[in-house]
Amino acid sequence: MADAAPEEVKARFEELSVLEAEFDDAELELIRKSNELNTPLWKKRAEVIAKIPHFWTLVFEQAPTEFDSFILPSDAQIFAECFETLEVTRFEIDNPKGSPRSVSIKFGFGDNEYFEDKVLEKKFWFRKTKDWEGLVSEPVRINWKKGKDPTEGFTEAAFKLFEAKKKNGSSKSKHSDLPEYKQLVKMIEESTEASPSFFAWFAFVSDYRWVSPEESEQTEKEDAERLAKMKRGEKVDDDEDEEDDETDYQETEVYPQGGEIATLIAEDLWPSAIKYYKSSHEQDDEDLSDLDVEDMDEDEDESGDEIDIRGLVGKGRAGSPPNKKQRKA
Amino acid sequence: MADAAPEEVKARFEELSVLEAEFDDAELELIRKSNELNTPLWKKRAEVIAKIPHFWTLVFEQAPTEFDSFILPSDAQIFAECFETLEVTRFEIDNPKGSPRSVSIKFGFGDNEYFEDKVLEKKFWFRKTKDWEGLVSEPVRINWKKGKDPTEGFTEAAFKLFEAKKKNGSSKSKHSDLPEYKQLVKMIEESTEASPSFFAWFAFVSDYRWVSPEESEQTEKEDAERLAKMKRGEKVDDDEDEEDDETDYQETEVYPQGGEIATLIAEDLWPSAIKYYKSSHEQDDEDLSDLDVEDMDEDEDESGDEIDIRGLVGKGRAGSPPNKKQRKA
Repeated sequence: MADAAPEEVKARFEELSVLEAEFDDAELELIRKSNELNTPLWKKRAEVIAKIPHFWTLVFEQAPTEFDSFILPSDAQIFAECFETLEVTRFEIDNPKGSPRSVSIKFGFGDNEYFEDKVLEKKFWFRKTKDWEGLVSEPVRINWKKGKDPTEGFTEAAFKLFEAKKKNGSSKSKHSDLPEYKQLVKMIEESTEASPSFFAWFAFVSDYRWVSPEESEQTEKEDAERLAKMKRGEKVDDDEDEEDDETDYQETEVYPQGGEIATLIAEDLWPSAIKYYKSSHEQDDEDLSDLDVEDMDEDEDESGDEIDIRGLVGKGRAGSPPNKKQRKA
Repeated sequence: MADAAPEEVKARFEELSVLEAEFDDAELELIRKSNELNTPLWKKRAEVIAKIPHFWTLVFEQAPTEFDSFILPSDAQIFAECFETLEVTRFEIDNPKGSPRSVSIKFGFGDNEYFEDKVLEKKFWFRKTKDWEGLVSEPVRINWKKGKDPTEGFTEAAFKLFEAKKKNGSSKSKHSDLPEYKQLVKMIEESTEASPSFFAWFAFVSDYRWVSPEESEQTEKEDAERLAKMKRGEKVDDDEDEEDDETDYQETEVYPQGGEIATLIAEDLWPSAIKYYKSSHEQDDEDLSDLDVEDMDEDEDESGDEIDIRGLVGKGRAGSPPNKKQRKA
């Protein structure tokens, strides 16, 4: 199918692949350096934030639309009532078998009417297969109070399927015969919700498929061998003629954009939290200047259909020092 | 207007501001570290790329939509014909009075029918004012061949205004009386183009206003003093009661999204170039599998209204080794 000199094209691609691996190493070193420089600052920040009610709820509300669109009005209500702390850590950063890209996102909650848990920790492992790499996660069980589950059973069903798969072992073919598998597929098919509750994110497994640490380690090893061959100028195999895997791994995925959300939290909301918090106050100023005087007496909690976390947490009229415009670079 | 304890709110904001400055220092150190780690790799990459025709044109074409939307079909035609090299450098990284965020974007071109220049370098300086920080730039003169200017005079008009302002000195009030100013305002008002040529980006000055190095240095100094006071727990002035500056600095801005484009090139296209180049080949594979056999004989250059750089540069059917899916984290 190639129009000219396929060997030449292949040689160029190999050179680029060797380079990509070197760029990747540089990126990992930068993640480590960033973690080293920022960890003490995140600690200090946590101390300041502890004095500020609803800090993280306000940050979530001020996040860019691409994140904000995942928070339903009913989720915002829950966050406003009991979301207290957020902590993001690179829990495999010093683990030679792990990845600095693996990330834990830990939510702390106060007593509330929705669930029993005080902490919900969602861990994402950076793993590789022959033709994919990315974040995978295990479903987190949430102990919902009776009648209070906004995911309508999805976190529980995903958790139970994951447990059943573990018991079932590595025989992939049988997973789809598990009653928990069939149950979850049925629930997904029958669901009429246009968009799931943000809390269904805790059930996320992968935007591809679950990848075990063993498979990932094996892939790393093979990649390293392939790379070493390329560097020595030896012939490496094409894997073009592999048969396609037709399994629909996404059939039981409750929250396909889960990895995207993890990345948005870890790489935007978490590092830029102060900026977003400040902009929630900046917006107050703008809102105020747009209001008519007679509007000022209305109850903020009755602000219509659109969700307004600042209203929910009673921050609609807080005093706010001026703030520099957001940097563009 | 504050609902409760404005002094308390102010104190919290000051603590956060002190922290923000420390996060900012960490970020600058990371930019330096990144530059140190990646510069040798970018050098190696340039050597490999030199063997690959149309590398950068293919990267531009594969860039995310948010960038791609800035390239008109007529721009794509020019790039396909003569765009040869791209180089991004942090030219103030070792300059204590400059910023590691300042960036130079240098395009190299082959002989072509459009302009005389072999190199077009657009430099962006990271500068600060009391209430803004971001990238500013000087308009770059492009020596268009007769009748070949896709910006229809905008790069030249912006360049001439900038020169006239320099001669005019710092008396802001007079700038709008300059004939070059009036001329450019008139051109912008009368322009009927829905979206400007990408080449008008070379005329970009600022998404706020031009900021001189002296003003920026003065701001840095004042910011540092303010910060030192905060750290010592001393009272700092609010600047809430400053009058608003009503000048419309954007009246003569030819390409308001110029800073955004600089950031996309420097922080996405440049570091991820290999990924985008490879995905241009991946897409070939997908395109091919979608094609009927009889379509294979059609002339690739006649692919209809939609611009197709891969068609323009004759890369529609290059052989291509398989490629890992893009990482999600």
